[in-house]
Amino acid sequence: MRMSRGFLPTLKEVPAEAQIASHRLMLRAGLIRQTAAGIYAWLPMGLRVLRHIEQVVREEQNAIGAQELLMPTIQSSELWRRSGRYDAYGPEMLRIRDRQDREMLYGPTNEEMITDLVGQTIKSYRELPKTLYHVQWKFRDELRPRFGVMRGREFFMKDAYSFDASYEDAVATYRRMMLAYLRTFQRLGVQAVPMVADTGPIGGNLSHEFLILAPTGESGVFYDAALEEQDWLAEKVDIDDHASLETFFNQVTQSYAATDEMHDQAEWDKVPENRRREGRGIEVGHIFYFGTKYTEGMDISVSGADGAPLYPEMGSYGIGVSRLVAAIIEASHDDAGIIWPASVAPYKAVILNLKPGDKQSDALCEKLYGHAPDALLYDDRNDRPGVKFNDADLMGHPWQMIVGPRGAKEGKVELKHRATGERFDLSVDEALAKVFAP
Amino acid sequence: MRMSRGFLPTLKEVPAEAQIASHRLMLRAGLIRQTAAGIYAWLPMGLRVLRHIEQVVREEQNAIGAQELLMPTIQSSELWRRSGRYDAYGPEMLRIRDRQDREMLYGPTNEEMITDLVGQTIKSYRELPKTLYHVQWKFRDELRPRFGVMRGREFFMKDAYSFDASYEDAVATYRRMMLAYLRTFQRLGVQAVPMVADTGPIGGNLSHEFLILAPTGESGVFYDAALEEQDWLAEKVDIDDHASLETFFNQVTQSYAATDEMHDQAEWDKVPENRRREGRGIEVGHIFYFGTKYTEGMDISVSGADGAPLYPEMGSYGIGVSRLVAAIIEASHDDAGIIWPASVAPYKAVILNLKPGDKQSDALCEKLYGHAPDALLYDDRNDRPGVKFNDADLMGHPWQMIVGPRGAKEGKVELKHRATGERFDLSVDEALAKVFAP
Repeated sequence: MRMSRGFLPTLKEVPAEAQIASHRLMLRAGLIRQTAAGIYAWLPMGLRVLRHIEQVVREEQNAIGAQELLMPTIQSSELWRRSGRYDAYGPEMLRIRDRQDREMLYGPTNEEMITDLVGQTIKSYRELPKTLYHVQWKFRDELRPRFGVMRGREFFMKDAYSFDASYEDAVATYRRMMLAYLRTFQRLGVQAVPMVADTGPIGGNLSHEFLILAPTGESGVFYDAALEEQDWLAEKVDIDDHASLETFFNQVTQSYAATDEMHDQAEWDKVPENRRREGRGIEVGHIFYFGTKYTEGMDISVSGADGAPLYPEMGSYGIGVSRLVAAIIEASHDDAGIIWPASVAPYKAVILNLKPGDKQSDALCEKLYGHAPDALLYDDRNDRPGVKFNDADLMGHPWQMIVGPRGAKEGKVELKHRATGERFDLSVDEALAKVFAP
Repeated sequence: MRMSRGFLPTLKEVPAEAQIASHRLMLRAGLIRQTAAGIYAWLPMGLRVLRHIEQVVREEQNAIGAQELLMPTIQSSELWRRSGRYDAYGPEMLRIRDRQDREMLYGPTNEEMITDLVGQTIKSYRELPKTLYHVQWKFRDELRPRFGVMRGREFFMKDAYSFDASYEDAVATYRRMMLAYLRTFQRLGVQAVPMVADTGPIGGNLSHEFLILAPTGESGVFYDAALEEQDWLAEKVDIDDHASLETFFNQVTQSYAATDEMHDQAEWDKVPENRRREGRGIEVGHIFYFGTKYTEGMDISVSGADGAPLYPEMGSYGIGVSRLVAAIIEASHDDAGIIWPASVAPYKAVILNLKPGDKQSDALCEKLYGHAPDALLYDDRNDRPGVKFNDADLMGHPWQMIVGPRGAKEGKVELKHRATGERFDLSVDEALAKVFAP
């Protein structure tokens, strides 16, 4: 994208309503604009980040055999009455009456709808297991929306729902999902630690929250440094083998990790002191096994191996995709702006033409830009170099390709790495090779 | 996807509520399920088609320099009061009160919001032109939703909005968009004819509907066969040159084309008889220039070349993405089921294993499937060949790769072309080459 043509409005002033870094930076860098309390429009650069995150999430869901579908945003109250949640759900549910005075709602989650869909469709235990997910807009009518998309009202979420024929299968599904989550967050370039979470009346230990470490996090977190050291993408797990999944799961859960809510001082004291990590975290994912709560509650069964009705065992698994944009920024920024991990960055690099109109500079920039115009941002604006440097740092592209008249004469690009500040004097081919290295 | 694991529920019974072919076929082939009146869940196969259409639409929007952003589904009534449309809009608008008793609505369209966003952001005529679009869920509370996603309440739409500094620039933008639409529909494998539409109080001739020809269409259409013969993808148009755009536009609009509403018998009589085409059509797109209606109405201006306030000239441009799924089926099916154009088909081909358990058949099928598991459907179910043939025809994949024990012994695949019924006896490599030919 050429910045002279793009819709990339930056702000010089720090907006007064923005209390945390990610909210300030998302407004200043032109990722979002508020259109109503807790509701945001995603401008082109913000949307690119959102889509990149969505795609990583999708690929890792597909990799464990989850299947994507898409449920609507507006639901009928009738479904929620069947589960008993229509009256139980608080004022966070956006309730609507349509023109025929039917009670509808904007879905905050989809347990009821997916359970009903599966009930209409799946008749036998032989058709299980099934894990289904969608990435869809949801609404929670927060009383005090704040922190930008971190706690907005309309938000974008991946929610998966699993249906298994037995508890053992459900446990295997849960473990597969934990692996998918660890891989997802690693690919997103953030440290997200799984913490055991409250299971309420369900019991057991099959509920984990994933928290991204960031000083502005809403929860205190305590965890064993062992959890930082794993390369989950390299980890060999046979997802079709229950024993392999169990080994993996034990390896994750043997290390202490808890939010302040669930913190256990006695267990914490057993962690060797040099491995104790304390900090704050932002919840970006939650996986939860809840058994037959909805299938029994809504009386949705399939025929079991013995011919008798069988209530599938369920779990649900959420990732806050729009919230992740803010959480990644909280975890990865400095005073000058955002520092995007390469996997989610809106563009691989920005080309800074320090002197538009200088023939050699223009030609060199066009050559760079022509290599991948969809993946590069070209700052071709008639602005001072200082403005361009500042905007580049603010927007946080992983690389800056700096082209001035002196270097251009020799066919040289100055490459700056946003995260480390390292600089390299390179030829066009060398610079492109570095920016597009896999 | 292996069908034994997929969530691909077909229906044998024709659902009583489905009155038109596309609705029946979308339910029977397992593309959608209704979750409330006029509201549908998109099952995995339907979602794949929806995404393929969305992606073609996106690529052609980007190709003319339109920029994608994403506006939220829920809007504040305040914006609509500023344009005067809040009270004017009928009961099709889904009106909502949030927990603070603020009047909100589920957006049926986004003129107000985008105009406000542009007004907040763009200060000078120098930043124009800008064409912005999004692909987002919308809601129209139809009194009698019917025909499945053809006239649903929650629907998926691409809507673009253009802002130009002069009438001449706005005309060029309009013509660019017409080119993008013609190319989009051609890539989608359907004949969509642009028909001059009513411009109401705006006047002029800058309003066109695009109708897909199908016997169940809601409008009668009359057009010159010349419009069928163009290859818009091969057409050389310099989109940065006003004269080139004008030549292209005149070439399109010189041929007669009108719906029954706008039909002009005297003009029709001038079309040579052998070139007169009459039929029915389904509206799938609409492009519309409306000048300063919203910018003046909402008092949103930029500074002009002379320093005085300038109201940008606007147009809006819609494509009904979810409706297109149904419209394409109306235009492309037979008694046995759907016939997907290759560009939107959920899978490139289905592999029919006629005898699962036969070692050579299984091995051959796995070899085919392993070539591109993301783009192929593998019918590995323990079902009779007749069931598989019927489902394959119903689901409408462009190609069927039929593998039986006899052929498998010789390493042969029978390839069937769904649209023509042609059959070919081929080696694995030959069959894959044909299926994945560009």
